[in-house]
Amino acid sequence: MIGVPPFFADYQTQVDDELRRIVPAGSDDPVARSMAYTVLAPSKRVRSTVTLLSAELCGGVTSRALPAAAAIELVHASSLILDDLPAMDDAPLRRGRQTNHLEFGEAIAILAAFGLLNCAFGNLARAYDAALAAKLSTVLADAVGEQGLIGGQAADLQATGQTIDFEVLERIHRGKTGALFVAAATAGALTAEAPADARTALAAYAKNVGLAFQIIDDLLDVTGNPDDTGKALRKDARKTTFVSFSGVDGARQLAGELSETANRALAPFGRKADRLRELSSFVVRRVA
Amino acid sequence: MIGVPPFFADYQTQVDDELRRIVPAGSDDPVARSMAYTVLAPSKRVRSTVTLLSAELCGGVTSRALPAAAAIELVHASSLILDDLPAMDDAPLRRGRQTNHLEFGEAIAILAAFGLLNCAFGNLARAYDAALAAKLSTVLADAVGEQGLIGGQAADLQATGQTIDFEVLERIHRGKTGALFVAAATAGALTAEAPADARTALAAYAKNVGLAFQIIDDLLDVTGNPDDTGKALRKDARKTTFVSFSGVDGARQLAGELSETANRALAPFGRKADRLRELSSFVVRRVA
Repeated sequence: MIGVPPFFADYQTQVDDELRRIVPAGSDDPVARSMAYTVLAPSKRVRSTVTLLSAELCGGVTSRALPAAAAIELVHASSLILDDLPAMDDAPLRRGRQTNHLEFGEAIAILAAFGLLNCAFGNLARAYDAALAAKLSTVLADAVGEQGLIGGQAADLQATGQTIDFEVLERIHRGKTGALFVAAATAGALTAEAPADARTALAAYAKNVGLAFQIIDDLLDVTGNPDDTGKALRKDARKTTFVSFSGVDGARQLAGELSETANRALAPFGRKADRLRELSSFVVRRVA
Repeated sequence: MIGVPPFFADYQTQVDDELRRIVPAGSDDPVARSMAYTVLAPSKRVRSTVTLLSAELCGGVTSRALPAAAAIELVHASSLILDDLPAMDDAPLRRGRQTNHLEFGEAIAILAAFGLLNCAFGNLARAYDAALAAKLSTVLADAVGEQGLIGGQAADLQATGQTIDFEVLERIHRGKTGALFVAAATAGALTAEAPADARTALAAYAKNVGLAFQIIDDLLDVTGNPDDTGKALRKDARKTTFVSFSGVDGARQLAGELSETANRALAPFGRKADRLRELSSFVVRRVA
């Protein structure tokens, strides 16, 4: 597996520090420990890095974008806990450790997922001036709701064991993965007070990177090994995936095309967007 | 069982209309239907009525307080779905119907609970000017978090089957019930731009009413019948409750004292607060 681009290190450190501040490890409270267990587990921090890069690209600074980036990671961790529950994907392994409900029990895991979502919204309201906090809350709520994580996960559950067409598959992953990538880029741009056209360009970039990311996840489920992915494999056997649709080569090609489409959306930014281009290339190359 | 005071009817109608607007019944989407199933089920709307009365008492109008009142009910419904899950209280009956997970399956129920919390925050950000939205989001996040619903539910789970002291019992219910009552009153006052001392008085009122409400719930679990309560009874047999601590008479007396303490906190408002006094008396009389 190909590692993240070297420039990630600094962003990862900033995000990890911010998350440790919001959800400290080593609490006595089981829910707090369960929250920290998933959100502080080793992670590439791809989504939050998109937030920080988007902010910088729009003339902002990472310190101002950091609470928004953390909110994206809190919501992402929350959705991972839910997705892995026995009633959902019943997954044993995540981020190289046993899943949250196996470590803490189902009740605490559910409360932790709930707590992480709550924390994301609460923290936005505390970290930013009211006008920006309200905008970011709306962006976050849209990414979580019917057109986002929840809608995508529900469609995924409905589709499991069923024959679905490509359109449904795309809708599932636009919700489960795309929406939070779009929110990540939009939130970063908003913290930098970016104009609407810059936000639109970054949202287009993020939507395509998100979908490419998911396709590669599907590929890794078939071709990867758990030491690299930190997840159990072949867990998608009962699901229609981009790979079952297009085969390994077709899926790889599709991901490559999405990455190129993503990068084309960055044209207005010129060379300043090179790190985002590098990020989208990395997303695709991780199976090469 | 004693019915709610007649003045409730108008507030209930307003809240129900607002909730139907936010979470429409009859959606095709299973998560949306599951959300509507619990949040639109028959309910006394005690918490949201506290919000509306608090707003009026501070010189506001109910129309402006309504999105905040709805947010309180959305969060409350969300917590009911979670509390009833097999991994938590494994309850069969709620609001006179079978519980959400029995109707929709566990996965959809969990997503619905998640969706309701998300909706509460998203809607605050959309319904209010930014400054008020941010304040209300903070109030809501505090009521849900470690010191609120999540902390209370976690402490409740830890205490089940254990011997606990009165202090722990009070902490559980301050989190599980008191915090959202306090948020309900505070939110109403905030929508009316109430000064800090009015908010403090209303928070003191709500904290005591919330605790009284919980004690009566414990009593009804022992002495009530499901046709009245809409819930399965004797479900708390493995739990320490206010009744197992103080007996039926002692619990009733405690609830009465809390209601009096609540009403004393309303002294600065004079006769204008009579409806809130009537509400707290109703909360206690429902077992009489």
